[in-house]
Amino acid sequence: MKNNSYSVAVLGAGNIGSAVIERLENLDNEIVEIDLKSVLVSDISKERTFNNDVVTDNFEDILNDDSIDLVIEVLGGVEPGKDYIKSLLSNGKAVITANKDIIADCGNELVQLAQENNTCLYFEAAVAAGIPVLKPLIESLRGEDLSRVTGIINGTSNYMLTSMEEGSTYEDALSTAQELGYAEPDPTNDVEGIDAMYKAMILSLICFGATPDKDNVHTEGITSITKEDFDWASRLNKTIKLVALIDNEDGGFNARVHPVLIDTKHPLAAIRGALNAVVVEGENINQLVFSGPGAGAAPTASAVIGDVLSACHQLSSNQSNWYPLRSQKNDNKNFDDVFSSWFIRLSVTDEPGVLASIAGTFSQNNVSIESVIQEGRGEQAELVLVTHEAPEKDMQNSIKQITSLDSVTSVTSTLRVYS
Amino acid sequence: MKNNSYSVAVLGAGNIGSAVIERLENLDNEIVEIDLKSVLVSDISKERTFNNDVVTDNFEDILNDDSIDLVIEVLGGVEPGKDYIKSLLSNGKAVITANKDIIADCGNELVQLAQENNTCLYFEAAVAAGIPVLKPLIESLRGEDLSRVTGIINGTSNYMLTSMEEGSTYEDALSTAQELGYAEPDPTNDVEGIDAMYKAMILSLICFGATPDKDNVHTEGITSITKEDFDWASRLNKTIKLVALIDNEDGGFNARVHPVLIDTKHPLAAIRGALNAVVVEGENINQLVFSGPGAGAAPTASAVIGDVLSACHQLSSNQSNWYPLRSQKNDNKNFDDVFSSWFIRLSVTDEPGVLASIAGTFSQNNVSIESVIQEGRGEQAELVLVTHEAPEKDMQNSIKQITSLDSVTSVTSTLRVYS
Repeated sequence: MKNNSYSVAVLGAGNIGSAVIERLENLDNEIVEIDLKSVLVSDISKERTFNNDVVTDNFEDILNDDSIDLVIEVLGGVEPGKDYIKSLLSNGKAVITANKDIIADCGNELVQLAQENNTCLYFEAAVAAGIPVLKPLIESLRGEDLSRVTGIINGTSNYMLTSMEEGSTYEDALSTAQELGYAEPDPTNDVEGIDAMYKAMILSLICFGATPDKDNVHTEGITSITKEDFDWASRLNKTIKLVALIDNEDGGFNARVHPVLIDTKHPLAAIRGALNAVVVEGENINQLVFSGPGAGAAPTASAVIGDVLSACHQLSSNQSNWYPLRSQKNDNKNFDDVFSSWFIRLSVTDEPGVLASIAGTFSQNNVSIESVIQEGRGEQAELVLVTHEAPEKDMQNSIKQITSLDSVTSVTSTLRVYS
Repeated sequence: MKNNSYSVAVLGAGNIGSAVIERLENLDNEIVEIDLKSVLVSDISKERTFNNDVVTDNFEDILNDDSIDLVIEVLGGVEPGKDYIKSLLSNGKAVITANKDIIADCGNELVQLAQENNTCLYFEAAVAAGIPVLKPLIESLRGEDLSRVTGIINGTSNYMLTSMEEGSTYEDALSTAQELGYAEPDPTNDVEGIDAMYKAMILSLICFGATPDKDNVHTEGITSITKEDFDWASRLNKTIKLVALIDNEDGGFNARVHPVLIDTKHPLAAIRGALNAVVVEGENINQLVFSGPGAGAAPTASAVIGDVLSACHQLSSNQSNWYPLRSQKNDNKNFDDVFSSWFIRLSVTDEPGVLASIAGTFSQNNVSIESVIQEGRGEQAELVLVTHEAPEKDMQNSIKQITSLDSVTSVTSTLRVYS
C-alpha cells in the first residue's frame, strides 16, 4: 500500500489562504488524504471559517513539527515568506507558494535548495493563477527547445486595455478596475508592468533556464496608452496588449515587458478583460496557447491544489526534482539589440520637406519605413509611420533625433508592433 | 543516484514513428538517457533514417526482451496494436500510444491493466496531438469538478470550416484539404465527426470518468454545412465549428459531436485552420483554453516525448498510476434530453398564416422562439428562426412536423447554437 495521507500547514489565512483551506478540507479522499495540521495567522483570537484549533502565530511550531509533510505559503510580500520557505526546505518539508515576488527574486536558489534537501517546491499559482501552464512547461514540454514565450500575465492592465479598446479613457478604465477590485488603490505595480516583470522572470527560469536581474528586464507599462492609440490600432486591424515577451532567438536570450500593437487575428488579441494567456513557441510544437483566469482566490487556490497533488506524488515516490530545470543555452542579449518594428505617431507642421527630414533621420539610423499616413493639414497635421524591424538602440536614437526636429511638434506615441 | 537510463522500443516506423525515433535519438541527456533498443517494422530490408540494426519484424522479440522498459506504439489502427499493448502491459512494460482508436475502444481497461501490473500507460498524443492537455487534466486539474469540456479536436474539419468561412464551397474546401494532405482520399472519418467522436470518448474518460459507447455519443459531421450557413452565421456575429461537447450538468453526463453556431467572441471561434483547442470549464477554474497544432508528425512526436518523460519519471519512482482516474458522478443523460438552442432556416411560400402554423408547431412541442427573420417574398421566401433552449426530442419532433407543413418547401438548415 502506498502512503497516501499527508499533513499540511498553511502560512496565511487571508483571501487566498482561506480559499486554499476550504479546498483542502473538501478534497476528494479518492485522490489523497490531507490532514490540515496548522495554519499560521497573525491574530489567533480572530474567528475563522475553518477549525480554530489549528491556528498558530508561531512559525517555529510549524517548522519544527516533524509530522508536517507539506507547507503552503500564501502570505504575500517577500518577507518573511522567503525566509520561511528557506527554513522549511532546509528542514526537508515540501513547499508550495503562490508568491511570484519570492520566486522571481530567488526561484532558482529555492529549487536547488529543495533538491539538495530531497524535497520539492511548486509555484504554479505564481504565474497566470488558475492556468496550469508551469507544470506543462516543466514536464510535458521539457524535451522541447522553446524559441519564444509571450504572455498576457497581468489581468489588471489587460482589463484596462480591453475597456479602452471598447472606448474608455485610461482614467475611466483605471477607476472602473479599482471599483471592481481588479486594481489596487495604488495601481503602480500593475499599470507600470512590474507585476508582469516578476512573472516574466519566472517564465525565463522555467522556459529558458535564465535568471535575468530585474534591471535586465526592460519594463514599460500602459500609462502612456491613449484612446487615440486604440483608434489607430483599429484602423490597422490591430489592438494593444501589455505583453511579457521572452525570446531565445537571433543570438541571445532577452526578457522584456511592454505594450505592443498586435494583429486582431493573433490569439492574444482575443484575451479580454482580466484573463491571462501564455503563448509558447518552438520548432516542434509550433504555437501553443494556454488561457484562463489570471487572478482571484478560486483560480489561485485551484493552482495550489494542483501543486498539492504534485507534491504529494513526489513525496510518495521520494523523488526530488525529477525534471531538471533547463540550462540557459544562449547568452543574454542586451535590450538595445532587440529588433522590433514600430508604430510612431507624430504631430508635425504641414510644410514642404517635413517627411523628407523625418525619413532622412530614420535612414541615418538604418531604420527603414514600411508605411506612412498623413492626416490633417496645417498646424494639426499628424504623421503615422510604421517601420520595418530595427534594433532598439537605432529606434531610440531615431526617435530622440526626430523629437528635436523643428518641423515635429511632438512625438505623440511610440509602440512596438508584435509579429 | 537515481536510475535515469531507459531502454525503449518503438512499434511502427511510419511518418509518426520516424519523427518519434528522431526525437528519441536527439533527446537531451540532461533530462533522461534513452537507449533505442528495437523498432518493429513490417519490412526489415527497407533503408531507414535510423540505425538499421535495431529493426525487427517480430513483436515477440520486443515483448520478451526483459531489458526493454518502455514501448511506444505508433502503428495506427486498432489491431494488432491493441493486443500488443495488452501483452506489453501484462509483461510490466510501460506503454505510450498515440492511438486514439485503441484508447477510445478500451482506454479504461488498459489503464487498469497498467495499474494491476504496476506499470503505466500514457496517450497524450491521442487527443489534440501537440497540445499538452490530457496530463494537465489528469494531474493539475484532478482536484477540480469539471462541468463541461468542449473541443475542436479534428483539424481537417476545422480547416474546411475555416475555408468556408472565408468563402469556399464545401467541395472546394474538401479538395484543398486533400491537396494539402489534411484530408484523406476518403474523408469520411473527419467530415462525419467519427475521428472527433473517438477523441470525445477519451476526454469523457479523463474528464468525467465516463466510458460511453460509440452508439451513445451522438455524432454529426459537417457535410450538410453550406456557404449560405456561414453567410447567416456572419450576420448573427457567429461562425460555425465542429465541436465535441461533453457535459456533466443538468442531471447527467452526455458526450456528443456536432457542428454549432458559435459567437465570434468565443475563444473557439478564433481557432482557425488545422488547429485544435480544448475548453475546460468548472466552478473554480471558470474557463481554461488549451490550443495548438492538432495533427502532424512533429507535434505528435512532441506529445509522445512528453509522455516518455512522464513514463520514465513513473518508472524511476516505481509508482503506478498515482493519479486515479475520476469516477463518473452522474448518470448518463440520453441525447434526447440534452437542451440546445437552435438556428433553423426554412424555405416557405410567402402566404398569410405561414408563420402562425410554424410557430404553432413549435409551441405544441413546448419550444419557444427567440427571433424570426423573413427574407424575400413569394416563392423564394426564407424564414430564419432562432429558438430558446429545448430538449433534443422536442426539437426533432418540431422539425419533423414543420417539414411536413404545406407552406414549408424545405428545411434548409438546422444548427445547434453554442452558448
